Amino acid sequence: MSKDQLDFLIRRIRVGGLDIGAPIAQVRGALEDLHAAIPSPENVSLLTTKLGDVEALESTTPQSFSTRTVLYLHGGAFAFGSVAGYSALSSTLATLAGARGLSINYRLAPEDPFPSAIADAVAAYRALLDKGVSPGEIAIAGDSAGGGLAIAMLISSRDSGLPMPAAAVLLSPWADLALEGESMQTKALEDPSLTERGLRARAEDYLGGADPRTPLASPIHADLTGLPPLLIQVGSAEILLSDATRLAGRAGANGVHTRLEVWPNMIHVFQMYDFMLDEGRAALKAAGQFLCDAFADHEGWKHSNGAALNPAASPS
Amino acid sequence: MSKDQLDFLIRRIRVGGLDIGAPIAQVRGALEDLHAAIPSPENVSLLTTKLGDVEALESTTPQSFSTRTVLYLHGGAFAFGSVAGYSALSSTLATLAGARGLSINYRLAPEDPFPSAIADAVAAYRALLDKGVSPGEIAIAGDSAGGGLAIAMLISSRDSGLPMPAAAVLLSPWADLALEGESMQTKALEDPSLTERGLRARAEDYLGGADPRTPLASPIHADLTGLPPLLIQVGSAEILLSDATRLAGRAGANGVHTRLEVWPNMIHVFQMYDFMLDEGRAALKAAGQFLCDAFADHEGWKHSNGAALNPAASPS
Repeated sequence: MSKDQLDFLIRRIRVGGLDIGAPIAQVRGALEDLHAAIPSPENVSLLTTKLGDVEALESTTPQSFSTRTVLYLHGGAFAFGSVAGYSALSSTLATLAGARGLSINYRLAPEDPFPSAIADAVAAYRALLDKGVSPGEIAIAGDSAGGGLAIAMLISSRDSGLPMPAAAVLLSPWADLALEGESMQTKALEDPSLTERGLRARAEDYLGGADPRTPLASPIHADLTGLPPLLIQVGSAEILLSDATRLAGRAGANGVHTRLEVWPNMIHVFQMYDFMLDEGRAALKAAGQFLCDAFADHEGWKHSNGAALNPAASPS
Repeated sequence: MSKDQLDFLIRRIRVGGLDIGAPIAQVRGALEDLHAAIPSPENVSLLTTKLGDVEALESTTPQSFSTRTVLYLHGGAFAFGSVAGYSALSSTLATLAGARGLSINYRLAPEDPFPSAIADAVAAYRALLDKGVSPGEIAIAGDSAGGGLAIAMLISSRDSGLPMPAAAVLLSPWADLALEGESMQTKALEDPSLTERGLRARAEDYLGGADPRTPLASPIHADLTGLPPLLIQVGSAEILLSDATRLAGRAGANGVHTRLEVWPNMIHVFQMYDFMLDEGRAALKAAGQFLCDAFADHEGWKHSNGAALNPAASPS
């Protein structure tokens, strides 16, 4: 446990944190400033690239398998965030999965509302496949709005006849733009990061008049049949807790291999603070191992003790 | 995947299976006959013993740590089952956790209704503590009714001021005796093992007039604050699927470290068929590793690669 780490973090967020309901331009700048303070992981090389027409950031490390790619969709309430601001998180997760990371700058609301972001994510996935990358060599990951977007792009890809990737990891996914989860009230005082008012403003921007319960915007209402194995991680101190638990219930009922992890007292996308928060690092390692196992299932071999090979799990 | 294994198993259950709504004496005998056909794991020594006044079966293997105990609560709708019939399942799980198993013959309904079974489970746990076993050296596990019972005994132990064990593993827990989960309808045709009618008969026997929503009988309605880390495994082809997903949601909201795993197409307590069903073995191994990690957290040391030592994970 890391009570001191968590207390410090929550105080910092409460005092200097963002109001995601504030004017868009103001939040965008502040979020990039905050993220610039997050240290980059060591030994990661970053390269700006493109996936089809979508701008992307590729991360590699000496440990990356050339045959494993984590396609990452950053958070930011569909209105904020960039591949640069989330590069530490996306590249760390990819590294822990023994993979290269590919994070994309999908279009943001309100300039480009639903379903532009989904179209960009599907286009990036399709571009990877068109390059000859096997679907079993790809995993999808995302946090917050990027977690909901990851599910939406999987549904949309499935409905377009694209093959499914090896797995997906969702960190604190925002999966209900109608904000009807129980935790929206029960965790309101505990959550230092998000507010219902702020989320509602961003949902309106993103939806641009679409029904907030439309399945591709709020995948807790979608048919998730045929999706690949999912790992959903969430903190217990989040107003989005019920998004995660309802999404897991829905996925399981639809016959998807589903793992839900609820981390006590943890806050929205606590994995982003892995450099200073023990639970953030532990959760990211568990997510990395989940992806290693999924990749290994497609690679068709296993380590001698039955666990999937994890090139990042060297003695420390 | 093991479609042939699963198809064979489902056909066998549908053709020769039990109707748990049938007369008690008939089901008890038939269940013991069925369980006698399950092969025992190798290298397991079984010893009849007592925990306080409660009859128990102890399983040990050459790999068992003397400082790890899995206290097992068998299934059987609170009316059937015995430590003998569930010895393969309970001893395999304990072995995969590097522990000895201690399974108890708690009192059954209708002869001894709610809360007799809970009193026996708490008494057994208290007897272990009274012998000087540290709570961090104990984990609780149970399947079906035994899974609900495991949660009830934890709540009851907490409320009696007893310290919490290291962790608990629940396989397809029956956690709602009012049978109000969505899966009670949506999975009725798919589930080859259980029926709403059968469960309702057994719930009435066990409750003996108590409110089916009373928290100790139906822990989806209980305050789960303070419980130890939980792993809940369930199949997607179960009418009890919603018991698992709602229990996980409740535990998470109460700040319990919670992991839910939904295994596609799997049936009620599929881990019992680990000797012939690949997913049963994979799920039991995951549960064993979960317990290893929890024990290791209390033992205060880690393997050099950051994973908890799993003495059962030898090269195979």
